[in-house]
Formats: sequence, structure tokens, C-alpha cells
Amino acid sequence: MFTAPLQPRIRGHSSLLSSVNTETVLLPLSVSHVSICGNRRITVSNASSEMQSCIDDCLACYRSCLSMATGHCLRMGGKHAEEQHLTHMHACAEICRTASHLMVIGSKHAPSVCAVCAEICEECAKECERVGDMDDCVAACRQSAESCRKMAA
Amino acid sequence: MFTAPLQPRIRGHSSLLSSVNTETVLLPLSVSHVSICGNRRITVSNASSEMQSCIDDCLACYRSCLSMATGHCLRMGGKHAEEQHLTHMHACAEICRTASHLMVIGSKHAPSVCAVCAEICEECAKECERVGDMDDCVAACRQSAESCRKMAA
Amino acid sequence: MFTAPLQPRIRGHSSLLSSVNTETVLLPLSVSHVSICGNRRITVSNASSEMQSCIDDCLACYRSCLSMATGHCLRMGGKHAEEQHLTHMHACAEICRTASHLMVIGSKHAPSVCAVCAEICEECAKECERVGDMDDCVAACRQSAESCRKMAA
Amino acid sequence: MFTAPLQPRIRGHSSLLSSVNTETVLLPLSVSHVSICGNRRITVSNASSEMQSCIDDCLACYRSCLSMATGHCLRMGGKHAEEQHLTHMHACAEICRTASHLMVIGSKHAPSVCAVCAEICEECAKECERVGDMDDCVAACRQSAESCRKMAA
Repeated sequence: MFTAPLQPRIRGHSSLLSSVNTETVLLPLSVSHVSICGNRRITVSNASSEMQSCIDDCLACYRSCLSMATGHCLRMGGKHAEEQHLTHMHACAEICRTASHLMVIGSKHAPSVCAVCAEICEECAKECERVGDMDDCVAACRQSAESCRKMAA
Repeated sequence: MFTAPLQPRIRGHSSLLSSVNTETVLLPLSVSHVSICGNRRITVSNASSEMQSCIDDCLACYRSCLSMATGHCLRMGGKHAEEQHLTHMHACAEICRTASHLMVIGSKHAPSVCAVCAEICEECAKECERVGDMDDCVAACRQSAESCRKMAA
Repeated sequence: MFTAPLQPRIRGHSSLLSSVNTETVLLPLSVSHVSICGNRRITVSNASSEMQSCIDDCLACYRSCLSMATGHCLRMGGKHAEEQHLTHMHACAEICRTASHLMVIGSKHAPSVCAVCAEICEECAKECERVGDMDDCVAACRQSAESCRKMAA
Repeated sequence: MFTAPLQPRIRGHSSLLSSVNTETVLLPLSVSHVSICGNRRITVSNASSEMQSCIDDCLACYRSCLSMATGHCLRMGGKHAEEQHLTHMHACAEICRTASHLMVIGSKHAPSVCAVCAEICEECAKECERVGDMDDCVAACRQSAESCRKMAA
């Protein structure tokens, strides 16, 4: 059905992947409406491949923000542990979780929620840049924001 | 197609992957505490690689159950759309989401929640087998149950 | 302070309260930022009384939609059990839960999320009216929509 | 501290109610399966009155823990802002939210989740006592723990 010996379709930015010890070559999702998370195949009956990708990005951002907020940031202290910053992180994690949820259930309202999610992610990225030492979180927020903007369009 | 020169650590069952048009070869997570979801790298400061894998499994199960419950099952009707079945699916989705959450924040209570999650996932797998035509969901539930049992131990 | 012989504006009922060892007479919410849910006093450091009220409304709507979707509607069958209707209900429940979350944590993004929440609740109310026999849910959606519009303004 | 002249067992206060165009006199919950949250009547088809009360307690605990964690505790600093304490608070908030969810959907697994929830709430109460200046949160955790233990039994 698909043979990609010469031109593997690599999803994502090479710059992001380059810092990861992994080679991920995935076939087009548009065929099977299947999403890959780790080694897991997820069949999603409600969502297009583009939406699947957005769900992936939102859940990755959720994990990154939540994990950093309750671990890294509190340990760093200072600006990282200020209320304003942590509230941003928690808000971003929560809206990403919910944007994913609406996409998973195939809600017609998913685009509206993705639009808000994109705004919050974008601002969280800026906030994380301001604080510094949050590169992975910045990348996750930007990726999620970009995907959500596409869904919202 | 892809050849990892030395010793590619392939995560996951080949039987699961074999039905997917993809080649996923990942290096050991234990080095970097990084999780891969799609093309996304997630740095998780609170979780070991085994825990990361469990989070992946739980979120995959969450997506599978929720998506099937609100799409596939309602469209199928009959046994698939009965209250008992759908409640199982929604309960499983929710506890998987929360088990993930506690692992992501690095809670000491994660193992207790994973223990309950394992039970619910296992029973959801059986329930999905009973109803039939839910193979992907059964696989996701089993995988999540297995990972959660390890975390709970 | 309380004299309601003729027109009791009594919330709850004595048999419930009688089993609770509590006497709760509260000052205006605007003073103490306290919310009442059942017989419980909730001190909320992040939210004004108007916001508390909106959180109450959103959580009430979440409970109503989720409960009806997984109980009443599936039992009724027919239009009540159609995918479109149930997806509306689940989407409304989820966004209400998240709007509450952002208000509880005092996020500056709460108004944006409340704006989307208001839209989804309003449409869910209409959807429930269309299907019929969903009066309590319609009321909960309308109340939540109204409160969210105020927060969004 | 409390001097109710005649012994009104009134929940809420007149200024809040006066702005609500509602006259709500409710029958015993055991008959109608209705819960009161603020001035809102919630019809819940899946849950007994005891379960309704437990949902109220869990959601109150969720709000208290989440609100204190992202507001009060970060502002207090010191022990209040330590990772251990905040992780407790966030874990407690999350499991309370999920215990509520399983009760709302009428899941047979609600008792198992309530059992874990009771443990986490109880320990969160102790943790909050250790840190001090968290009285409302301690009370909310204790109340939720107690209700959850009953549900789990």
C-alpha cells in the first residue's frame, strides 16, 4: 500500500528531532486514521490525520507544561516559581488537555477551543522564554499553538 | 528502510506494530527521560522512562476508549450503545487520564491510582471483547493495564 | 436574619441538612470569597464572588450534562442517544469543567475560555430543547452560559 | 463565632439568593436525586443522594486544593511552596475531580476510585496540617475523605 524506500515522510521539524536520539519514520496518517504515540497504535474513528496530529501536539504540550510546573520550576525557584508563571503553565496544560478531549470526541466545537488553546500556548511559550531555561516547554507550546491554529482555521 | 546500526531497541510488541504501516525504532528512554509522542519530544523531569511509557499507554487508552465510545460504539448501536458498555468506556478513559496526570506530576500516590487503573482497564478489555468488534480498544486497554500493574508493584 | 415563613427561599432540604453537623450562616461572598456547594464552605483565594458563582454554574452544568449523557439519554434512546446529541453533551461537560479549572487557578485566560464555554453551553441548551425532555439540563446550560458571558465581558 | 439567633439552618445568604430569580424548595434527595450546588439544582439520574453528597464533597475538595495550591501556597512561600506539598495538593485535586466524574457517570468502579481518593485526601489533610495555615483545605480534605470512605464501603 505504501512504500517509501526513497523518500521517507518524516513528521515534524528536523531541528526538533535532531536533538533526540531517535529516528521516526511514519507513513502518512491520512490513510489509516491511526496515530502513533510511543509504540502504540491508536485508532481514532472521529478524527482526521491532521486532527490526530494536533491531539498529539496538545497532549505533548500538556505533559510538558504540567511536568515542568510541578517539577523543574519549583526546584529552580525564583522567577520559575512565581505565581504568574506557574498559573500560565497550569492553564496551558489544562486547555491543551481539553482541546484534545474535544477533538477526540469529534466535537464541532473543537475548532473554537483550539483557537483559544493556540492563544494560550503562544503566550505560554513567550512566558517560558521570558523566564528562561524552559526550551523544551517553549518548543512544545509553539508546536501545539501551530497545530491548533490550523485546526481553528 | 531504517537500519539502526548497532542494537535498535524496539519498544512494543511486533505483533501490534506489524499491523501498522510504520517503522519505529527508538533508543533507550532511560538515558534522557524523554518521551516520544508522534514526532514530539517530551522532557519529563518527574518521571522515569518506565513511568513515561506507562503515561504513553494510559493516554493511548484514554484516546482509544473515549474516541470509540463517542464514535464507533454509538454508530454501531445494539450492544455497543448500551449504557453499561459506554459507562465502562468512559470510566476507563477518565481513570487513564488521571493516572497519567499523577505520574506526570510525580505524585507518590501514582502507584495506588495505577493499581485501580489497571483493574478498570482489564475489565474494560473484557467488556470490549464481550461486545466484539473492538480489537484496537481491547489492545489499548490490555497494554495500559499491563503498564499500570508494573507501576503499581 | 432569616424569616421565610411565607416565601421560603430555602435551598436544600432539612432532611439533608439535619444529618450534617453544621450551622452555616455566611457573610456576603464579596467579603470572604467563599463559595457554598452543598453544605460545604469553600475558601477560594483566587476568585471574586462573581467568579465563584460562575464556577458553581459551570460545575453544575458539567454534572448535569455528563450525568444525563451517560444515564438518561442512553436509556431514552432515539434522538437522545444519537451521536450528535451526546457529543454536544460531552463537549459541554468538558469545557465547563475546564472553564472552572481556569477560574479556580486564577488564570488571566479564564475570560477567553469562558467566552467559548458560553457559546458551547448556549448551543447545548438549544440542542437539548430540540431533543426534548431535558429541562434540567437546558436550565443548567443557560445558567452557565449567562455566567460565563459575564466573566468573558 | 457563630450566633444564629433562632437557629436557621440556612445554606447560602440572602444577598446571593436575592439576585437569583428562583424559589427552590426541594423534595428529599432520595426521591428526586437532585443535588444543590450554590443556587443551582442539579438533576442527577445516575446517583443516589449519598453519592450526590460525595460528589459535592469531592468537588469542594478539588476546588479548595487547586485554588490554594496555585494561590495561597505560592504567595506564602517557604514550606507552602515546596514541591512535596504542592504535588500533594495537585494530586488530591485531580483524584477528587475524577472520583466525582466516575460517580456522575454512575460507574461501578466509583467505589474503588473513592477508596483511593479517601486515602489521598486523608494524607493531604495531614500534609496541610503539617504545613499549617491551611485550615479550610484541611477541612475540605477531611470531609471528602469521609464521604469517599462511605462510598467505598
